[in-house]
Amino acid sequence: MSHRSVAEAENCRLVRVELADRSYDIEIGRDLLPKIGEKFTSLFPGAKAAIITDNTVAGLHLETVEASLSKAGVEYHAIELPAGEKTKSYDGLTFACDAVLDTRLERGDLVIALGGGVIGDLAGFVAGIIRRGMRFVQIPTTLLSQVDSSVGGKTGINSGHGKNLIGLFHQPSLVLADTAVLDTLPRRDFAAGYAEMAKYGLINDPDFFVWLEANWQDVFAGGSAREEAIARSCQAKADVVAADELENGQRALLNLGHTFGHALEGMAEYDAERLVHGEGVAIGMVLAHEFSVRLGLCDPAVTDRVIAHLKDVGLPTGIDEIPGQKPNAELLMDFIAQDKKVSRGNLTFILTRGLGQSYVEKSVDPVAVKDFLTEKLA
Amino acid sequence: MSHRSVAEAENCRLVRVELADRSYDIEIGRDLLPKIGEKFTSLFPGAKAAIITDNTVAGLHLETVEASLSKAGVEYHAIELPAGEKTKSYDGLTFACDAVLDTRLERGDLVIALGGGVIGDLAGFVAGIIRRGMRFVQIPTTLLSQVDSSVGGKTGINSGHGKNLIGLFHQPSLVLADTAVLDTLPRRDFAAGYAEMAKYGLINDPDFFVWLEANWQDVFAGGSAREEAIARSCQAKADVVAADELENGQRALLNLGHTFGHALEGMAEYDAERLVHGEGVAIGMVLAHEFSVRLGLCDPAVTDRVIAHLKDVGLPTGIDEIPGQKPNAELLMDFIAQDKKVSRGNLTFILTRGLGQSYVEKSVDPVAVKDFLTEKLA
Repeated sequence: MSHRSVAEAENCRLVRVELADRSYDIEIGRDLLPKIGEKFTSLFPGAKAAIITDNTVAGLHLETVEASLSKAGVEYHAIELPAGEKTKSYDGLTFACDAVLDTRLERGDLVIALGGGVIGDLAGFVAGIIRRGMRFVQIPTTLLSQVDSSVGGKTGINSGHGKNLIGLFHQPSLVLADTAVLDTLPRRDFAAGYAEMAKYGLINDPDFFVWLEANWQDVFAGGSAREEAIARSCQAKADVVAADELENGQRALLNLGHTFGHALEGMAEYDAERLVHGEGVAIGMVLAHEFSVRLGLCDPAVTDRVIAHLKDVGLPTGIDEIPGQKPNAELLMDFIAQDKKVSRGNLTFILTRGLGQSYVEKSVDPVAVKDFLTEKLA
Repeated sequence: MSHRSVAEAENCRLVRVELADRSYDIEIGRDLLPKIGEKFTSLFPGAKAAIITDNTVAGLHLETVEASLSKAGVEYHAIELPAGEKTKSYDGLTFACDAVLDTRLERGDLVIALGGGVIGDLAGFVAGIIRRGMRFVQIPTTLLSQVDSSVGGKTGINSGHGKNLIGLFHQPSLVLADTAVLDTLPRRDFAAGYAEMAKYGLINDPDFFVWLEANWQDVFAGGSAREEAIARSCQAKADVVAADELENGQRALLNLGHTFGHALEGMAEYDAERLVHGEGVAIGMVLAHEFSVRLGLCDPAVTDRVIAHLKDVGLPTGIDEIPGQKPNAELLMDFIAQDKKVSRGNLTFILTRGLGQSYVEKSVDPVAVKDFLTEKLA
């Protein structure tokens, strides 16, 4: 049975990422983890695998993956790294590369990334540079990684100079998004991933945003709306990536809410107790809408609607909801200048003309941004 | 004046590497270093540069490059690393990445690799992974790097598990091969680079080999034959790379002499006092010819001719010329098995049917190789 017919038979959803000879499928459905072995042998016959995971995810899901690979006769090696952002570092990279080389896998073998965004980014990078490129499979275990970081081929690590500054574009050969593993995710992390999902509606798909307003409770509860929402999100990202793989143009739309969001994350010193990435994006999207209103681009009723929905699902929508010291506009502007290239005195922001009508604006006056933030923080 | 007309006006030779949107020029000629500034501004207007070099090359050529960039108004930063193979390591990579990030260069700026193969491989890798890919310029300062490692986009570092195991394909935007810098190269290093040059003749261009037999003294002396020989070598490599960028097939021809050569380098513990890479390739090419004769593929007179020419230029042609402990066949076979993937019990070697008639043979019996080596070492 081909893997496509397996997927169809079991009501999986398939999203195809169209990138010429680097095209691949994202399979979305409940309980895919126990079937990884048969999928692996049908797609990559004779290949071996190195599973890169972290110790938290290993405790929850590694046994299932190992049992399935063993049953299918796949030779594999598991490599466990400490959970947390610190693993996305030069040291984590060196350790993981050496661990994969220890297994004596060849260029035709595969790396399996089993975990959230940290593991996916790191393992994808490792796969991209061992023997100048091994294939890899993404098994994202958080909502955030299922709808965002596992799709599109961005891989990398952080340096002391900033996040994701070292890395490359390396597309996976397969993404398996098992929606059942999200049942073990803390609600706060689920909501953080949901912010990226809502983002796809707000970029250019107002119907999807309206659909989320009506169905978010089922998405959180794990019903069939969850698969639907994840599949639509992956499709949205896949479409953008297919049109602009290396981020030379429209891929920047995916940064809606991210310029403000990254500045807030920096302000909160990347302390997950205070603010996780998806929460920063939620507040950032609200700010992007409010700033668009201030520029006369967007009806204030749209912003109210966005705020209302994000509040419904339990996401923060204002800077004042971040615990700890309140930032000032000056410092936020410093973070914004670090995050974005200032081109001839102008900043690039993703702004919006209405619900799901975002666009890339390359000539934003930094003074207008600062005035806006000063007012917000007054 | 466009850079092409500059090149023509000054009797540069241009070799185009045809790789669709990753195509680039190799410029070959005397005294190109003092012109790097004007070339840089004409090709990359407004861009800044990070020069990665080693302390030996810096002492010889950095001032020239800096003066030229300064005169042309290019903002640059120089990064010096220790000379030697140890720099091609995780530590060297981390140091160089952080040093480039320190300069606050953007994705549109460039890395300049000023040095031999170690610097070219490392700097190309660094350029490939900073901000998911910066452009870079190769300025190879050894014959080996001018005719081999600077062309084709292979970049990387060594790990404890072996050479070049971590890296990626990242094509430069320009290669500048200044043949005058070779005047400062020790004769032994020049001869080592010459081995790779002779290789291109032995792969598939008997006319070039015959031409080298007649002109090698002028190549060594630095006359116009040097530019001719380097340009023909770069063209030969460019043709192979254009046909098979990611080494899925015919690019393997470039490994003529390298399987035996790498095993000998390993045996000599990568001790440059005993054997440098090009010398290993010279002996390896002789062994590949002798083994082809033994298999009845090639006329022994061809091997004699190859040996005679390599001896003429001062290259070693036999294992017994390597100082230190004599290897045994068993140990060499271990190194060969590590270097090459053993596929269903067979080894892949580049063999030859005559002068300049090499081909990829995927079903070489390891027992035949071992018998051959045992006899050679008896």
